[in-house]
Amino acid sequence: MQWEPGHPLGSLQDMARDERSVTPQSEDFPAWYNDVIFRAELVDRGPVRGSMVIRPYGYRIWELLQADLDGRIKATGHQNAYFPLLIPQSYMEREAEHVEGFAPELFTVTHAGGKELEEPLVIRPTSETIIGEMMAKWISSYRDLPLLLNQWANVLRWEMRPRMFLRTSEFLWQEGHTAHATEADALAETMLALDFYQGLAVEVAALAAVPGEKTPRERFAGAQRTFTIEAMMRDGRALQAGTSHFMGTNFATVFGITYASENGTAELCHTTSWGLSTRMVGGVIMTHGDDKGLVLPPAVAPYQVVVVPIGRAGEAAVTLAAATELAASLQRAGIRTHVDARPQLSPGFKFNDWEMRGVPIRLELGPRDLAAGTALMSRRLSFQQDAAKHAIPLASAAGLLTGELAAFQAMLAQRAADFMAARTVITDSWPEFATAVGVGWALALHCGEQGCEEEIKAETTATPRCIPLAGEPEQGPCIRCGKPSAYGKRVIFGRAY
Amino acid sequence: MQWEPGHPLGSLQDMARDERSVTPQSEDFPAWYNDVIFRAELVDRGPVRGSMVIRPYGYRIWELLQADLDGRIKATGHQNAYFPLLIPQSYMEREAEHVEGFAPELFTVTHAGGKELEEPLVIRPTSETIIGEMMAKWISSYRDLPLLLNQWANVLRWEMRPRMFLRTSEFLWQEGHTAHATEADALAETMLALDFYQGLAVEVAALAAVPGEKTPRERFAGAQRTFTIEAMMRDGRALQAGTSHFMGTNFATVFGITYASENGTAELCHTTSWGLSTRMVGGVIMTHGDDKGLVLPPAVAPYQVVVVPIGRAGEAAVTLAAATELAASLQRAGIRTHVDARPQLSPGFKFNDWEMRGVPIRLELGPRDLAAGTALMSRRLSFQQDAAKHAIPLASAAGLLTGELAAFQAMLAQRAADFMAARTVITDSWPEFATAVGVGWALALHCGEQGCEEEIKAETTATPRCIPLAGEPEQGPCIRCGKPSAYGKRVIFGRAY
Repeated sequence: MQWEPGHPLGSLQDMARDERSVTPQSEDFPAWYNDVIFRAELVDRGPVRGSMVIRPYGYRIWELLQADLDGRIKATGHQNAYFPLLIPQSYMEREAEHVEGFAPELFTVTHAGGKELEEPLVIRPTSETIIGEMMAKWISSYRDLPLLLNQWANVLRWEMRPRMFLRTSEFLWQEGHTAHATEADALAETMLALDFYQGLAVEVAALAAVPGEKTPRERFAGAQRTFTIEAMMRDGRALQAGTSHFMGTNFATVFGITYASENGTAELCHTTSWGLSTRMVGGVIMTHGDDKGLVLPPAVAPYQVVVVPIGRAGEAAVTLAAATELAASLQRAGIRTHVDARPQLSPGFKFNDWEMRGVPIRLELGPRDLAAGTALMSRRLSFQQDAAKHAIPLASAAGLLTGELAAFQAMLAQRAADFMAARTVITDSWPEFATAVGVGWALALHCGEQGCEEEIKAETTATPRCIPLAGEPEQGPCIRCGKPSAYGKRVIFGRAY
Repeated sequence: MQWEPGHPLGSLQDMARDERSVTPQSEDFPAWYNDVIFRAELVDRGPVRGSMVIRPYGYRIWELLQADLDGRIKATGHQNAYFPLLIPQSYMEREAEHVEGFAPELFTVTHAGGKELEEPLVIRPTSETIIGEMMAKWISSYRDLPLLLNQWANVLRWEMRPRMFLRTSEFLWQEGHTAHATEADALAETMLALDFYQGLAVEVAALAAVPGEKTPRERFAGAQRTFTIEAMMRDGRALQAGTSHFMGTNFATVFGITYASENGTAELCHTTSWGLSTRMVGGVIMTHGDDKGLVLPPAVAPYQVVVVPIGRAGEAAVTLAAATELAASLQRAGIRTHVDARPQLSPGFKFNDWEMRGVPIRLELGPRDLAAGTALMSRRLSFQQDAAKHAIPLASAAGLLTGELAAFQAMLAQRAADFMAARTVITDSWPEFATAVGVGWALALHCGEQGCEEEIKAETTATPRCIPLAGEPEQGPCIRCGKPSAYGKRVIFGRAY
């Protein structure tokens, strides 16, 4: 099923828009994105170019993603640590490809404590170098391996074209860094981290994402192989939502990360690194949002349920008390619930506000509902052929809403998967390819030559997003130049964020 | 009861020291501290002067402190957010006292993306200025108040005399920033934050700490009043373990943080800020450790229980399997348990190692224990008049150890409180004062004049740590100069970290 504007899943046109409404997504996706992130109070602009203030409503989404991912990381034997923000410039220069890749993005500290520093320091754009230096110190024997580290940190990369959550000069992320005795162990680790990301993306953020390998041109600076999960956004573009890198012995060589084997020989370690950032919040916004604003999967929604008490004058105190009591019972059942008690705003304004802010389920509680022992439930998106509102009994609300939230989460994941499937075209025809990447993705054979990749990008703005891990073996002529295909399978092409 | 080296609570001299043992605390406290933090693998030195790598064993202590404090902060209606690392230099200069206080400690970024910046940026030493700027934008009406924000972040302050955890050029912390309609509300918030810190310190870190107010000379740069919790370390020195600041309208004035009152008049907000950092990990180390190394309160111990399987050749596999099963059952009961399965190390080495690393409870599991259905339990510190080792039944180990850990936590908190009480002297005699601050704290009357504070510091290296909130009203001549006392109560003086 392909999602269309106006489809019952995507719109609630019967409700009047107030002045806080956003540019319809179907009219102008980038304007919609900007409207939503600022009006829903996810972010604000920082004072420095490309910087972002993450406001509580946006930060809570990140915290929920974080908590889940941290659990996956720890459950598999990784330990969190913390490494310094400032790195001697000389460290960055040791791995040739690494410095070439990151040099244009570095922030440099030249003064501290009122004096000029002897050696300039760079603010970490990523931490392979400083962690590599420490690994070399900590690892001596095969018994010290694998060394499985992770850190939650801020990193800075100068951005010429900043875009909130997607490309900002500072962002928050986790970066895993591991060292292994064998290439096979390091590759298995690289794939394990990719599994964390795919699991988080699909099970928690309800994205539709494809795990795969990057072509050589799209690799991380200094990696031998880079893997990625690519998620399809609602405008058909791809978001690189998490990457996992197999470094081989590149960093081990330049930082001297060696170990004594069981036989006593000195061997180079094989290292990996993998990262997922606040960019994922952008992926949530662009996967689920619609003309009315945000739509949040319950697993990452700061408020899963908002209760709006309704009633004039004397009734207001009674319904507010009942709403507070209801919210407490939902909280006890593990449902993140908020009571909107703002006295100066009308119920209609509140309905629109929480709709725009993407709350999965709204409960209205008026004097008549209360008398009947019920609340009126509305979902942020209606399921097909289902009434817009339901009266639910207060006595069993917690159990019922737990089920509703799970169904809502599953529905969003399915809707995203259906959307991705409908917008992905398997093709061997160049005109069809060019059309497909205009609105989604094309699965095509490619020669693997960088010049050919660049031509495709110049003509269509599409790039190879990944070689899907699950792709079937296939060979044939390149979609663009007709030369024999590389990689042994089809490649996903699309426009990217 | 006063703790002494050699006391049964503090020493296990019957066990042989291996070469990894640390300098005895009773011989040289600073050397002991350095030995412990590096050998227990809490930290390592970073490549830049004053920088610190927090290794997994140290970082886990911080995570456990964090989780508890974050819960206290959220439960009282505060929300986490994230503000940029880099602050325009001009922001720092707006509040005169603030810039004067922090200017000597700033790291300055002058280049980004290969070009010189138009305005230099400073790395946040604290975030009052950038958060003040955003608060001014977000607050318009009394309905927006209170605004209760917190962020978990890294901050940088150039350190001339770095000391791991206690004073490092980069450290991790939380900084709460709130805005209120009235002075009374802001003062209540300042005290609430101090309560978080005192609660964390006593209930979780098992420190002995006194909440109080700083004298004017010791205030935060830009604050009208600064409150602190001062904890007594095992060498009698004070550690400022968390501070909470009432800013009055200082920052509101320079950043224009105003609100429209119910009557429509424009009013200045009253703001607060409060922070607690990785320094608290240093407080844990220096409050509980002894000649053998670390002693960790169960609430912040990465491993609360370590199981050491014992057995030669054929038996080893059996005891290891039993140890793993035991650990799993303890984990299910919420006890952080680690099995030390390192085949190359002797049980004796492991016992010393985990003792040095401060694990509260060790279980030995050998073939004979297993046959008897028991494990041999040793506490990191013996309770008085209690045997060093106990056989405990495996079948009821989880329940039993839950109780043991709670008792161990309570014992450490009591021991710290007793130690602080024994080392705190109420005095009106200068010679007694000078002796007291050499080994602990003095509670004395003081004139409140800065020159007199400085003289006391010059002669004894002691400073006023705080005016305890709980102090009884009292007046009289200043301990040093004899002038009439200020503050209406006694002041704690001591040497500080």
